[in-house]
Amino acid sequence: MAVDQRVVLRQEARRREVMEAAIAVFSERGYRAASMNDIATKMGMGKASLYHYVSSKEEVLIELYEDVLRENVIAARRIAGSERTALDALAELLADRVAYTCRNRELLRIFFEEEAELPARQQSRLISVRHEYEQTLLDMVARGEEAGEFTLPTTPQIFVNTVLGAANWVYKWYQPQGPLSPAELGSQIAGILLAGLRSP
Amino acid sequence: MAVDQRVVLRQEARRREVMEAAIAVFSERGYRAASMNDIATKMGMGKASLYHYVSSKEEVLIELYEDVLRENVIAARRIAGSERTALDALAELLADRVAYTCRNRELLRIFFEEEAELPARQQSRLISVRHEYEQTLLDMVARGEEAGEFTLPTTPQIFVNTVLGAANWVYKWYQPQGPLSPAELGSQIAGILLAGLRSP
Repeated sequence: MAVDQRVVLRQEARRREVMEAAIAVFSERGYRAASMNDIATKMGMGKASLYHYVSSKEEVLIELYEDVLRENVIAARRIAGSERTALDALAELLADRVAYTCRNRELLRIFFEEEAELPARQQSRLISVRHEYEQTLLDMVARGEEAGEFTLPTTPQIFVNTVLGAANWVYKWYQPQGPLSPAELGSQIAGILLAGLRSP
Repeated sequence: MAVDQRVVLRQEARRREVMEAAIAVFSERGYRAASMNDIATKMGMGKASLYHYVSSKEEVLIELYEDVLRENVIAARRIAGSERTALDALAELLADRVAYTCRNRELLRIFFEEEAELPARQQSRLISVRHEYEQTLLDMVARGEEAGEFTLPTTPQIFVNTVLGAANWVYKWYQPQGPLSPAELGSQIAGILLAGLRSP
């Protein structure tokens, strides 16, 4: 490996650590109260060194949102594109989302609670990616109804909002020391939410 | 009616209006950024007059939390004490909670997002009342399992956390201009969440 390449990789790893430190600081203190100084302290580096990796608190926040959005969209496309019944695809998507939430609880706390702190352009982007994500679920629901897999008891939108709400709220109560792995909990919660759609 | 009594009633009505103004201000600006001045401006009164009704922003916040807790506990006790099957009681409690959330969306936004701003004593009280509320649901679930009404697919705690999460998240997406009343939406959401427990 060339020396340049090693330097780039080391830089990227360090930047990743800065992001992790920022997640911890924002989650603990709230974004507004947190400072670049807090992040530097958490990293055990000087503030000047920190600016070598990120230029502002806002840049960090935007990148954290981008991480979550990217992860969500990739998961949604992967699952929507697979050969599954609509019901199995819905179960997979919900289980995946819960598991991701469990593994990134502090990040999701920021994601769900600091939306108002984003600059307007990123807020619009957030809304549009969220719509795309919801649309993936709505498409799965429509496919399942057309195929006669199930009949919804409500409109597709109310159904999707309800099951996503249950999956999202997990960031408030998941305890990593509990007996279930994130994947197990995800699959159990998907089971609760979709039980009514499974034929007896 | 005696003059004294009329004065007290007028005072109480005015204090209620102050609370409504505070809910709007906290919900718009966030509790930390909001000031007593903002509340006074919203009321169209001077700051000195405002202090006639409430002594601090914190007092207002604590009272808002007390309102929600009182409402929740009263609803839970009323429904738990009624002659219903456990499944019907669970449906009623969830529907009631969703409807209350729809009717008090700004208040619930504060309730769910400003918890960290409460003084420590009130935080403990919040946690203990929340446990009492969850216990009511856990008791209903246990009663239903014992009576052979249903079998849960998960532990009672995971089930209760999941359905409450779906009900709570409604404050994020409910649109008052939609076609359903709060009560109708509540009963549809309860239907989704409990469908898996109903015998075929």
